[in-house]
Amino acid sequence: MSREKTEKRIPLQTVERLSLYRKILEELHRNGVANVYSHQLAEMVHVSSAQLRRDLASFGSFGNISRGYPVYQMILTISRLFGTDTLQNVALIGAGNLGRALLFYRGFEERGFHIAVVLDIDEEKVGKVFAGRRCLHIRDLETVLPDFGVTMAILACGPQNLQGLVDRLGKTGIRSILNFVPKQIHAPEGMYVENVDFSAKMEKLSFLSRFGGAQET
Amino acid sequence: MSREKTEKRIPLQTVERLSLYRKILEELHRNGVANVYSHQLAEMVHVSSAQLRRDLASFGSFGNISRGYPVYQMILTISRLFGTDTLQNVALIGAGNLGRALLFYRGFEERGFHIAVVLDIDEEKVGKVFAGRRCLHIRDLETVLPDFGVTMAILACGPQNLQGLVDRLGKTGIRSILNFVPKQIHAPEGMYVENVDFSAKMEKLSFLSRFGGAQET
Repeated sequence: MSREKTEKRIPLQTVERLSLYRKILEELHRNGVANVYSHQLAEMVHVSSAQLRRDLASFGSFGNISRGYPVYQMILTISRLFGTDTLQNVALIGAGNLGRALLFYRGFEERGFHIAVVLDIDEEKVGKVFAGRRCLHIRDLETVLPDFGVTMAILACGPQNLQGLVDRLGKTGIRSILNFVPKQIHAPEGMYVENVDFSAKMEKLSFLSRFGGAQET
Repeated sequence: MSREKTEKRIPLQTVERLSLYRKILEELHRNGVANVYSHQLAEMVHVSSAQLRRDLASFGSFGNISRGYPVYQMILTISRLFGTDTLQNVALIGAGNLGRALLFYRGFEERGFHIAVVLDIDEEKVGKVFAGRRCLHIRDLETVLPDFGVTMAILACGPQNLQGLVDRLGKTGIRSILNFVPKQIHAPEGMYVENVDFSAKMEKLSFLSRFGGAQET
């Protein structure tokens, strides 16, 4: 099958499960496990074996299943799909408390994402160095971003004029945004946005602990 | 219909959409909008009108639909469902970079969650005051947590012995956990866990900007 055919049709839920598979596979790899059977991996990830096999089949063959899936090769394949087999440069917008915490968050580098440039609108922060990166002014993003070869941005700034910022990012070649600002934004054509809303997760938990678990679907 | 019948069966996806509805309704309320038609609200939230009406119907009636839904009353109703019409006390485990950023995160208080107590294992942090809360030692959680009347906890600590910590939290009356630690944990019977995995979201975005959007289902 052509790449066009196989990869373009992977549903988003499969993509999300791939992250989970990879996380577990890396734990196995660290523990020296070379091969894993689908039913074992499925159990660790809390999906059915059939689901797991369907997910993996959607992006190619993993060789001799009778010996189990090869752990390290799967990690590499998933990384290649994510484009994180080489480090991806990322722009961080906002050097406040959350932004600075994200700069120090080791999980990004471990998974192939490197915050290469930090921008803020606050003159107090511009020019200061945070975790080795000198903070630049948002007003200069059009001239600055192309130098860093970034196609992804993380928004951890204030909510003022957020959509305007997103539109500017789109014009400088940013293709996807991880948005921590609790405000709705509209993704320009060809751009992807994922929102992280801590409070919404808390609301869900609060609901669940009051009314019990509705079944996951 | 009894509360048992109506509320216990609300699916998790509806609960997640309720958070989104409430966020939009609060924006409308701040802008002085008193009533909103279902098709307007649906458009703002990017769901179908039918979906929106089904979601809202699952937790009761909202009065005269010909005049549109009453914005403020809906906010209150959703808050009551979430249990956040009164402030919920929350325990934060971990006063590192991320933990401290969460302490300063205004979104929690705005949505009805108050971090009442902070615990850490690091003797350097214990005894220090962060955003007005004196950091306590994790070893004392069994004696300390009951004083604060917390039933929810946020994990922003290291990955060492995480499951042991979760089990201890369960025994002190914690019913739900928001987990920022990129490690799988098993929820004890009757406890709910939501994971926040920034890197998994980045991987999804990276995949999407490489292969284009698979349709949301």
